[in-house]
Amino acid sequence: MTAYENAMAHARQTEALAQIAGRLGWDQQTVMPRGANAQRSEEMAALEDVLHARRTDPRLGDWLDAAQAPDEAGAACLRELRRAYARNAKVPARLASELARITPLAQDAWEAARHNEDVASFLPWLQKMITLRREEGQAIANGGDPYDALMEDYEPGTGSDAIATIFDRMRPRLVALREAILGADTPPALTGHFPQDAQLRLSRRMAEHFGYDFTRGRIDLAVHPFSSGSGDDVRITTRVAVDDPFNCLYSTLHEVGHAAYEQGVDRAYALSPIGQGVSMGVHESQSRIYENQLGRSRAFTGWVFGAMQQEFGALSVPDEDAFYAAVNRVTTGFIRTEADEVQYNLHIMLRFDLERALIRENLDATDLQEAWNTRFLADFGYAVDRPSHGILQDVHWSVGLFGYFPTYALGNIYAGCLFKAMQADIPDLQQGLATGDAQAATTWLRDRLQRHGALRPPVDTITHACGFAPDEGPLLEYLEGKFGALYRL
Amino acid sequence: MTAYENAMAHARQTEALAQIAGRLGWDQQTVMPRGANAQRSEEMAALEDVLHARRTDPRLGDWLDAAQAPDEAGAACLRELRRAYARNAKVPARLASELARITPLAQDAWEAARHNEDVASFLPWLQKMITLRREEGQAIANGGDPYDALMEDYEPGTGSDAIATIFDRMRPRLVALREAILGADTPPALTGHFPQDAQLRLSRRMAEHFGYDFTRGRIDLAVHPFSSGSGDDVRITTRVAVDDPFNCLYSTLHEVGHAAYEQGVDRAYALSPIGQGVSMGVHESQSRIYENQLGRSRAFTGWVFGAMQQEFGALSVPDEDAFYAAVNRVTTGFIRTEADEVQYNLHIMLRFDLERALIRENLDATDLQEAWNTRFLADFGYAVDRPSHGILQDVHWSVGLFGYFPTYALGNIYAGCLFKAMQADIPDLQQGLATGDAQAATTWLRDRLQRHGALRPPVDTITHACGFAPDEGPLLEYLEGKFGALYRL
Repeated sequence: MTAYENAMAHARQTEALAQIAGRLGWDQQTVMPRGANAQRSEEMAALEDVLHARRTDPRLGDWLDAAQAPDEAGAACLRELRRAYARNAKVPARLASELARITPLAQDAWEAARHNEDVASFLPWLQKMITLRREEGQAIANGGDPYDALMEDYEPGTGSDAIATIFDRMRPRLVALREAILGADTPPALTGHFPQDAQLRLSRRMAEHFGYDFTRGRIDLAVHPFSSGSGDDVRITTRVAVDDPFNCLYSTLHEVGHAAYEQGVDRAYALSPIGQGVSMGVHESQSRIYENQLGRSRAFTGWVFGAMQQEFGALSVPDEDAFYAAVNRVTTGFIRTEADEVQYNLHIMLRFDLERALIRENLDATDLQEAWNTRFLADFGYAVDRPSHGILQDVHWSVGLFGYFPTYALGNIYAGCLFKAMQADIPDLQQGLATGDAQAATTWLRDRLQRHGALRPPVDTITHACGFAPDEGPLLEYLEGKFGALYRL
Repeated sequence: MTAYENAMAHARQTEALAQIAGRLGWDQQTVMPRGANAQRSEEMAALEDVLHARRTDPRLGDWLDAAQAPDEAGAACLRELRRAYARNAKVPARLASELARITPLAQDAWEAARHNEDVASFLPWLQKMITLRREEGQAIANGGDPYDALMEDYEPGTGSDAIATIFDRMRPRLVALREAILGADTPPALTGHFPQDAQLRLSRRMAEHFGYDFTRGRIDLAVHPFSSGSGDDVRITTRVAVDDPFNCLYSTLHEVGHAAYEQGVDRAYALSPIGQGVSMGVHESQSRIYENQLGRSRAFTGWVFGAMQQEFGALSVPDEDAFYAAVNRVTTGFIRTEADEVQYNLHIMLRFDLERALIRENLDATDLQEAWNTRFLADFGYAVDRPSHGILQDVHWSVGLFGYFPTYALGNIYAGCLFKAMQADIPDLQQGLATGDAQAATTWLRDRLQRHGALRPPVDTITHACGFAPDEGPLLEYLEGKFGALYRL
């Protein structure tokens, strides 16, 4: 076997084992008996040890040094493998092991702190996590910027300076839009009681309309919706609030977007280094365009209005227009995961600036709460009323996910670009959506983006799909256009 | 770390990974999307490679050579590890890999052959599987008997000569009992329509009454009922036939017996080499005593009769005695898994003699069908009418499970001994069971047997629990007494 073939065979087995780890994560959050928690931790740790040993196996390094790619896909595989190997080889085993050990403890501390609104009890854990991840970033960066090094894990090839520049251009326009909307009349919300079974039935229908392949996936309930797995086993979860059906329906569409990307990758790439989504930002572009640009459009919500009347009888809003306004209602709120399309990106920008400062040692964890609250008031126009509505709301920092947040906003930006290109290519897009038919859109996304997996780096993936290089323009125009019309600004 | 500590740490991680493999098996048979089959095979193969490498790791051999046990439990752990290591080290990697490759293909061939009643199409696969497993048995036996070597995988320390001697003593008494019963009047069966939900509700109640810990397990539906996992994550499955509620109820109790053993092992042994059931035979003793000696007793079926009336309304049988007779009905039949307590062991003896002859080259696969049918007529008194009722009925041989069948009968023999000892120790056993309360019995089993896991070898485990060495006497007395009374022989 050639060095290339050896590297690919090794990577394929590693990927198969990584899929198993993902499946265990699914199991843990859906069906696992609660008494199995401690045992499962030990099982997962054993599997993570195997994965870590394979990913830092010196033989893999030798093969990658000598490997010659036979074609474009092979070159992309080597690009992905070399990046991951170089990264993993730079992290001292002691540090990787300490991070693995501290993470569940820090997460527990965060959960307790959030429950008790007690920032002080979480600060030592946060400081420890910042120190360890900074150290990891420094080891990877090798003299470069540690925050950029961490970002590479989630969004390779997009440095934080580029992100900061984009965000700085976006912020004033989003703040202005947010101010104008909150100054206008707020449309009525949808109210009522919506039984779980009917919500799940409708969300399954919507998943089917958006192309989710149930023969290679399934939908279950979980506390936090997520998508898990690649290739032929891509499972999603959703949740139900009986007084808020949009929670279930749009969580489902969001996860269907992630799952469609994984299910849509060319099967020739299965279990290879390019057999899955190329980055978190590109992944989020799929979940966001399914959920927002398509799922929350005037056309598709018109169909949802009718489908909901069938399932639930008469609704508290009288017609399709009022329903569309209810789906896209913008109000004050503190929680990122519940934010509307307009305010969501402001949440991300706040976190991005703060976490970059933390990792770069420009902000101390002890000053984080004040920095958060000051910034929140400036961007959102109202003050944080408690820690669980402020710095304690997200799990990310407690588990060391520094550098992850910007990928959410990047996903929105990419979704804006993809939607612009898609509209130009599909003249009757809205007519289809108005009948609940998303096939033209999902086929376009599959052909232009999903099937290519990680063949091209993230920005190239979007550029290839859109026919133009991505920037924040299309997203801002979309938001200003949509919400300007809705709120008659 | 000492050699002992190194060996134990290594084994603990291997066991954690083996638990993951078990969990994937559960997933595959309960919740996995059907389109994921091929991908899952590759994932499982990757994990099996990891497990095989660990189980034959030369470092483990060195540690085991040098290890000194600190106490009785440690000595038992070393006993189990050394036996497994010596076995695995003797099997050539080429042979292990060829067996892994051929097994799913042979199983597919068996499924098709059974469906088409086509023995000829399965014979080449059967011959291949016999050859490979014989070769494996010879490699392990190192000049000794290859069938005994294979049996060791499932029932260490009990050679096939001992089994043959016991079976030869049992056969005439069981054949005589079977003839007498089939010559007597057959009691009416329970008939009716029994909705799935109610069957599952009642089977869950029975599982609770028999001590199944739902905080460390769960019950799902599957085509073939099974129990899976050890320690704090022991899941069982059941199945439902709407015209035969005993299928669901007693499959559940059977699996609860297996699960209770795994859940009952001393938690100090968790993930250690003695942290699970010691052998298939001892495991089967637990499933059988829960299902038969306890679950199908006159006392407990009296409670089931009342519980079924609550769930399903009036039944087709008028009273507890008629219900007890319906539960324990003995009729002609071809299928092992559907056999009653009397005829079940005759099925096993037939398979044991034939498979031992196959492995020992005393019987050729081409003569197997005739040998099966001749023997069946002699032992059961009626002729096999088609291959799927004869040599094609069981999956075992197609997946190479030679040496496994005798553990089923051994389990029945052990259950007979345990029940005899239990009755002597618990004077009011029947009074408890008559109210649906199995706690006295399950507590006795947990204390005497389950909590010890694999601390002692199989026969010692039973001897320790019973206070006497096991033989077939108690089982035969129990069967002759129970069915003699039921059928007024």
